[in-house]
Amino acid sequence: MNEVRTAAGAQGSAEASVGAQARERIRAGSAEPTSGLAPGLVQANLIAVPADWAFDMLLFAQRNPKPCPVIDVLEPGQVESALAPGSDLRTDIPGYRLWENGALVDEVADATEAWSRHPDLVSFLIGCSFTFETGLLDAGIPIRHQEAGRNVPMYSTSIACRPAGRVHGNMVVSMRPIPARQVAEAVAITDRFPAVHGGPVHIGEPEQIGITDLDSPDFGDAPVIEDGDIPVFWACGVTPQVAIQASAPPFAITHSPGRMFITDAPEGTFRQ
Amino acid sequence: MNEVRTAAGAQGSAEASVGAQARERIRAGSAEPTSGLAPGLVQANLIAVPADWAFDMLLFAQRNPKPCPVIDVLEPGQVESALAPGSDLRTDIPGYRLWENGALVDEVADATEAWSRHPDLVSFLIGCSFTFETGLLDAGIPIRHQEAGRNVPMYSTSIACRPAGRVHGNMVVSMRPIPARQVAEAVAITDRFPAVHGGPVHIGEPEQIGITDLDSPDFGDAPVIEDGDIPVFWACGVTPQVAIQASAPPFAITHSPGRMFITDAPEGTFRQ
Repeated sequence: MNEVRTAAGAQGSAEASVGAQARERIRAGSAEPTSGLAPGLVQANLIAVPADWAFDMLLFAQRNPKPCPVIDVLEPGQVESALAPGSDLRTDIPGYRLWENGALVDEVADATEAWSRHPDLVSFLIGCSFTFETGLLDAGIPIRHQEAGRNVPMYSTSIACRPAGRVHGNMVVSMRPIPARQVAEAVAITDRFPAVHGGPVHIGEPEQIGITDLDSPDFGDAPVIEDGDIPVFWACGVTPQVAIQASAPPFAITHSPGRMFITDAPEGTFRQ
Repeated sequence: MNEVRTAAGAQGSAEASVGAQARERIRAGSAEPTSGLAPGLVQANLIAVPADWAFDMLLFAQRNPKPCPVIDVLEPGQVESALAPGSDLRTDIPGYRLWENGALVDEVADATEAWSRHPDLVSFLIGCSFTFETGLLDAGIPIRHQEAGRNVPMYSTSIACRPAGRVHGNMVVSMRPIPARQVAEAVAITDRFPAVHGGPVHIGEPEQIGITDLDSPDFGDAPVIEDGDIPVFWACGVTPQVAIQASAPPFAITHSPGRMFITDAPEGTFRQ
């Protein structure tokens, strides 16, 4: 699943890749959500924990592949992903969250200073469902939050993940309202992307997974739902952030929900 | 991939499952290779390392999913797999190898004593290609080593695995001679089992992957090759044993090649 072909020679060449250009803009200060940016390239969630917590976190991901499909793991202290030559995880994400003992203590645009205080961080990149939105759009399926210029709505659920050592927590899902006649096609398309959460975990009936108010997501923006839409829920890479809250490692850095790391890997890399 | 449904209530019931019965015979002393035993159930390779090495080993597996498809990871000191209720990894495998600093120091029929000296061992179960042999047989494809009552031949290759921290090494492959007219079907069938090595990594031309003498495998028994057979090579779960040799952790326990852990998980559990 992670034996990927990365786009050749992105950084430093006269023609920087689409991914490298997007990272460059972000490094220069852009803080926008990344849905719709660099279409066709895999986007990733970040979770970085101290080396002492790395086994538990990797095992949590291995045991919960739907919300936590690992596409790259960087060894302690490394910040350049093999999926994006020339990248720097400390600067190339539009927004970061800093966590101490399970509490969100700060949100920053640049994580270089925080990283320098924790030089043994092990970084996990987890596939993001933004990746398959291109496939949905290509099939004529509307992406309501993109049309409205909003971040995707995300919700904490009552679905328990399988724990691993000290790491535990419930699943977070992203929601896209899909016209009823196109739901089956949306399932078929996204099912082909197991490394970016794959098919939905739940369709309709939000209260069955503990979501009481669709208009008040726990992360991201309120949804735009049109007549005849069905709410469709995909496992979400924000799940490890909820696990960080529940499990309280001494320190962690994550991306801000909706603000992803853009790789050079074509989405087809991880397609079945 | 590891969200499996295990066969219900195997151990202790009046009707023990096929898997539990096989483990019971092994626990009582059977030391035979397990190819052909408990048809239709997933068989697994064992690799157990000290907790301090567990992250590197899990990352090695994550980075090399073809030879190292992880189907279960037990937390430090645990010996009962979720894939086989009532099992005990210390006794339910027909043969064990004990490793110290990369050297094979002993082969034993029962690992209880060795385990007691290293109570923090983290055990990895890795899918075994014996699992898909049932699918091949069902399609009328001969399994030569089973017909001859031999262990499958396995070879060290020149294919380097992607390293992870301190863990590195070359890939080991198993080989099955397949009649030329059935090779394509064997590929199609095994490709549907990604959690037990999936499709072949190489077909014909053994010397291209560093195998100079097919009749002298590095593990298992010499092959039976009939006229018109093509040697077909699948990534093999013995790969971590070669990585143990190359990487030299202070201690490790593995299964003996060809002598597997039989789970209660139906092979369909891991089929695509």
